[in-house]
Amino acid sequence: MHLARESWTDADAADTTLAVLPVGSTEQHGPHDPLGTDVLTAEAVAEAGADRYTDPVVVAPAIPVGIAEEHRRFSGTLWTSESTFRDYVRDVVGSLAAHGWDRVVVVNGHGGNIAALKEVTARIVRHDDAYAVPFTWFDEVGEHTSDMGHAGPLETSMLRNTDPETVHDDRLEAAAADGADGWGEWQGRVNLAVDSDEFTDNGVVGDPRESSADLGEELLDRSSEALCDLFDAVRDRDPTSRTD
Amino acid sequence: MHLARESWTDADAADTTLAVLPVGSTEQHGPHDPLGTDVLTAEAVAEAGADRYTDPVVVAPAIPVGIAEEHRRFSGTLWTSESTFRDYVRDVVGSLAAHGWDRVVVVNGHGGNIAALKEVTARIVRHDDAYAVPFTWFDEVGEHTSDMGHAGPLETSMLRNTDPETVHDDRLEAAAADGADGWGEWQGRVNLAVDSDEFTDNGVVGDPRESSADLGEELLDRSSEALCDLFDAVRDRDPTSRTD
Amino acid sequence: MHLARESWTDADAADTTLAVLPVGSTEQHGPHDPLGTDVLTAEAVAEAGADRYTDPVVVAPAIPVGIAEEHRRFSGTLWTSESTFRDYVRDVVGSLAAHGWDRVVVVNGHGGNIAALKEVTARIVRHDDAYAVPFTWFDEVGEHTSDMGHAGPLETSMLRNTDPETVHDDRLEAAAADGADGWGEWQGRVNLAVDSDEFTDNGVVGDPRESSADLGEELLDRSSEALCDLFDAVRDRDPTSRTD
Amino acid sequence: MHLARESWTDADAADTTLAVLPVGSTEQHGPHDPLGTDVLTAEAVAEAGADRYTDPVVVAPAIPVGIAEEHRRFSGTLWTSESTFRDYVRDVVGSLAAHGWDRVVVVNGHGGNIAALKEVTARIVRHDDAYAVPFTWFDEVGEHTSDMGHAGPLETSMLRNTDPETVHDDRLEAAAADGADGWGEWQGRVNLAVDSDEFTDNGVVGDPRESSADLGEELLDRSSEALCDLFDAVRDRDPTSRTD
Amino acid sequence: MHLARESWTDADAADTTLAVLPVGSTEQHGPHDPLGTDVLTAEAVAEAGADRYTDPVVVAPAIPVGIAEEHRRFSGTLWTSESTFRDYVRDVVGSLAAHGWDRVVVVNGHGGNIAALKEVTARIVRHDDAYAVPFTWFDEVGEHTSDMGHAGPLETSMLRNTDPETVHDDRLEAAAADGADGWGEWQGRVNLAVDSDEFTDNGVVGDPRESSADLGEELLDRSSEALCDLFDAVRDRDPTSRTD
Amino acid sequence: MHLARESWTDADAADTTLAVLPVGSTEQHGPHDPLGTDVLTAEAVAEAGADRYTDPVVVAPAIPVGIAEEHRRFSGTLWTSESTFRDYVRDVVGSLAAHGWDRVVVVNGHGGNIAALKEVTARIVRHDDAYAVPFTWFDEVGEHTSDMGHAGPLETSMLRNTDPETVHDDRLEAAAADGADGWGEWQGRVNLAVDSDEFTDNGVVGDPRESSADLGEELLDRSSEALCDLFDAVRDRDPTSRTD
Repeated sequence: MHLARESWTDADAADTTLAVLPVGSTEQHGPHDPLGTDVLTAEAVAEAGADRYTDPVVVAPAIPVGIAEEHRRFSGTLWTSESTFRDYVRDVVGSLAAHGWDRVVVVNGHGGNIAALKEVTARIVRHDDAYAVPFTWFDEVGEHTSDMGHAGPLETSMLRNTDPETVHDDRLEAAAADGADGWGEWQGRVNLAVDSDEFTDNGVVGDPRESSADLGEELLDRSSEALCDLFDAVRDRDPTSRTD
Repeated sequence: MHLARESWTDADAADTTLAVLPVGSTEQHGPHDPLGTDVLTAEAVAEAGADRYTDPVVVAPAIPVGIAEEHRRFSGTLWTSESTFRDYVRDVVGSLAAHGWDRVVVVNGHGGNIAALKEVTARIVRHDDAYAVPFTWFDEVGEHTSDMGHAGPLETSMLRNTDPETVHDDRLEAAAADGADGWGEWQGRVNLAVDSDEFTDNGVVGDPRESSADLGEELLDRSSEALCDLFDAVRDRDPTSRTD
Repeated sequence: MHLARESWTDADAADTTLAVLPVGSTEQHGPHDPLGTDVLTAEAVAEAGADRYTDPVVVAPAIPVGIAEEHRRFSGTLWTSESTFRDYVRDVVGSLAAHGWDRVVVVNGHGGNIAALKEVTARIVRHDDAYAVPFTWFDEVGEHTSDMGHAGPLETSMLRNTDPETVHDDRLEAAAADGADGWGEWQGRVNLAVDSDEFTDNGVVGDPRESSADLGEELLDRSSEALCDLFDAVRDRDPTSRTD
Repeated sequence: MHLARESWTDADAADTTLAVLPVGSTEQHGPHDPLGTDVLTAEAVAEAGADRYTDPVVVAPAIPVGIAEEHRRFSGTLWTSESTFRDYVRDVVGSLAAHGWDRVVVVNGHGGNIAALKEVTARIVRHDDAYAVPFTWFDEVGEHTSDMGHAGPLETSMLRNTDPETVHDDRLEAAAADGADGWGEWQGRVNLAVDSDEFTDNGVVGDPRESSADLGEELLDRSSEALCDLFDAVRDRDPTSRTD
Repeated sequence: MHLARESWTDADAADTTLAVLPVGSTEQHGPHDPLGTDVLTAEAVAEAGADRYTDPVVVAPAIPVGIAEEHRRFSGTLWTSESTFRDYVRDVVGSLAAHGWDRVVVVNGHGGNIAALKEVTARIVRHDDAYAVPFTWFDEVGEHTSDMGHAGPLETSMLRNTDPETVHDDRLEAAAADGADGWGEWQGRVNLAVDSDEFTDNGVVGDPRESSADLGEELLDRSSEALCDLFDAVRDRDPTSRTD
Repeated sequence: MHLARESWTDADAADTTLAVLPVGSTEQHGPHDPLGTDVLTAEAVAEAGADRYTDPVVVAPAIPVGIAEEHRRFSGTLWTSESTFRDYVRDVVGSLAAHGWDRVVVVNGHGGNIAALKEVTARIVRHDDAYAVPFTWFDEVGEHTSDMGHAGPLETSMLRNTDPETVHDDRLEAAAADGADGWGEWQGRVNLAVDSDEFTDNGVVGDPRESSADLGEELLDRSSEALCDLFDAVRDRDPTSRTD
């Protein structure tokens, strides 16, 4: 049930309370991965999860621009303020819920969105007429999660599996050479940097040479399976906490 | 230069000040056209215009949800508040401009967005560091414009040309039969209705049986040509009015 | 029932649900018409409509400053932001409705207010406890509407009928000579200008020499009659759409 | 220089930095005084002051609705939220200043506006490009100030001088009989009441029988003289505090 | 019941609807009094009132920064915007009320907060589920109130009684010598100054040499007694005005 | 340099650019720890760090109420909305910076504040005239960090060292018995709960019986040492990223 491609009458016939809202970012992903990486991967996971789930799940169109001001000095990065992003997500979830799809999983492909999604979904649960939770796919791939980086092995693998034409294989060496080993400039547990160009020259963190289409297939499989488990939980959740 | 599918380094190499931002809506389009009609058509026109233009034009990802509360009682319609939508567009245009693409045409596929886009682009021109104008494709197809309706001949034709699999040809008769002849419930020049279900049972205005793929091709051709003419004007515009 | 000139006890005795709220603008109207043109005309129409209507209609005081930033470079033009204007109108309508006058016609004399009034009245109908519609007088004068312009024959005629001392008859020649033929600088259907001084030197659009007090009387008659027809429709409207 | 009745060209020729912005309220003033009392009196004082001043003073149109929710249970009272009112005043003052009239006296006729005007004018002085101060006329009439009340001798006298047809002389006895002696319900220096109907049955505080047209003339004379003294001070003020 | 120092279980056992929220400011108080004067005194009065009251009263932690931009040019002065302050107070009162402590006295130690507290508490009473009133201690000390000034005899006395180590006795002479006699620069009843450094060199208004610990004890006694009288009134108040 | 207890003249003499702003929460901490735990510990760390640092550090008063709606069903928990909290912090940091103390460490004692502080300090660095970073003390105590919980061994130890009278030693057994082992109700990496009472009956997570005053002393020592290291880094940081 990919909402954007169905008529309203078919959408109306969907017998479900479950919806997924893919959320990404349009932002630099090194010289080798496309600016749309976080949208493409979020959409892929959302669709794979909805496809493999036993019951119907409404798939909303992906929100393409998120919280990415930290990459502002890399060309092509787009962003909104945090509050604009939260408002946009809240309004969209509210309109999904207005049609009875009031169990909403926000499938996220961008680390920079995580805190804002946690804030806005909690606000929705407490104060609106919906139950919503965020799901960030690269947190749900088991031991691979620790290899995330930025435009590193995980994201590059996902794209090589689903959108291989968007990856410049011939730039992986350069991407790795000029990238950073870790995210941020740290003093203890405090990151002194607010923008990514303070610690990475080409925007890369991690080694994308470790990517492969096979790994991408595995990542998609694991994350979409985890998403299905979450669908079960969300569908059955008694949101007794929703008391306002 | 489809931003979402390019790397930031390739985006950085684009020698242009021009960008297009497609803006649509996810909302009912009768029993025969998809909920994503306004996004699909806006994207098609934006891409066709950018492709045929002599100079490079940056194509931003489409904003999929707009101002559509008027269709709220038709399943699958998504919407944000007007102010959320304006904020989202303003932020995205601002980030485009931050990279030097500060001549932005917002290519719109939805009538409900027009007033908000006029307001926000004027605000951008007067108070931000960018020059932006809205362009609504179905206003730029000559004598056909008067046939617009909603999910009527123009939109259905566009889809039959670019995304034919999303149109239910077998529902055109029913679509026409239960649709309305005009938009709104009028007392003089005042529309007494605020929601579309007050005057159309299935969401249709106009007769989609008059659509064809050929007409769609013509509409795409004419609107993208008009868009190229606008690129010329926007590129050369001396925004002397930008004085704040 | 001119609210500002009645006591609350007399207002309380009014047996009606109908109210009109005149809304104008204080902005340049050429060298010949006063800056208050849009308020004076909106008030005149609102009062004439209320006077000729069979049932009592509460007339609220006119809101004198609206959305007129486009005229900012002409001395004396006053404006608020669009959101401030919408908030002000919404609050005033809300307080009218609190007294039982919850069928409100916003009588408008300024083109720049139209979109904002459409947005805010729809919001009121959908989310507040009132039914409100905008009514722009120069859209309700039949074939004359196409002669509107700015400080042109229609507005000048209205003033020559109701407030002749505010019109400088001896400047009509100069007003016409230095005015523009049309509103905006157009590329296709897109207006490239955001401020009126980009296309008119003295602020005039149209030929005010075609004005007359007789025409003004006719315009007032036609628009106030249309307003009365709207009162009927608004009074009897079943706002079933008001479901939030 | 009554802005609303002048052309922009004449306004442009005004050689001054001084402007007055009358601000009132539309709210209950007992059974005898009109709902528009606070606007009528503010306008009268602003105009009298501008007329008697040696140099030209731009008179802006009066803002008719202010902060009056405390009278919400008396029919005909209109109000906006405090923040809407502040925004409206700030925007209007900003547009006056844009034309070079950046010394603005906000002439106020309503006690409920005082705190909001102090806040917003200080914000304007500190953060915008203008110097603005509030002036509440009934605070500037010497020993009479202590007789203010609400719809009491001062306001009623002012109206009997400038707008006598709006006062119901035959209701003064009843107005006095059912009014309250003082404003509020006090515990120490704390007013326990938030709405005026908690302490006055007909909305009156003070004895309007003590009013007269002669007293009104004196009040207008004294307050407009005080306003002229303020014009001197505001014109000559070195706003060194304006450092942001 | 000092909330910050009690466990939630003990707070839960409190059998009361009454709470006090101390509100101060961190701002210059001359060379002799500490920047925290307004918080220290507000806390002292709140605690003394709660201690002497017959029934339990919940004491919330003090809000330390308020509306003090007027002192911005004196080092160490902290401030928030008026709207931020109001939002903060409203949210905190709302959370107190959520636990059943919905009769809230906001005990204030700073003149600059008074108008904002009046606005926000009225809003709470009218629109939220709580009854709240502001109480400014130096307005409740009888004939002493007229000696208030700024960092003058009253505040200095309070501190010499409760926090003597924060007062520099050896600077009282200098404080008095360089202070101002009154607050503001007046033209009639209008204060032309928006910042305190426009009329006082060291921030002092009034003569702190007239202070004493004995006077401080008396002030604390009188204000806390007045606060207890207010607790009675607030506890018993029938907030029939709360109708929204 | 505890700002609240110093005069403005002494604050003015401080030769430093460094300031700390303690930020806590007033919220349930089980039956044994006080509601003010997060403020008390944040203040203790901030003061200890400032005291041990070689150069002067301005200590601002602690912000006592933060983001704690998740504990709303436990009596005494106070909270503001996330946006109110961010606004409050931003305004206070802005006023610190106005005095030249534009290197600000926000010392935080509450997990629920972390995301909001990251957002607001990044906004300050990018758009305001200050450099600010958040520092959460329990993230800076080495291997102990993993024992954090809520009202568990770390917080209880801190209080037993600095404010032992606020800890109910006789309730530690009950606190541990009815507490939860972990925070949240998890499906994969998604927490299905938005409020803490969904997974803990008495508000406790972790075993406070493992606390001791000695451990508290060590925690204070380690965290204040880490804070001093951060002071060095913040003082010397070239905020080249601050380009807006």
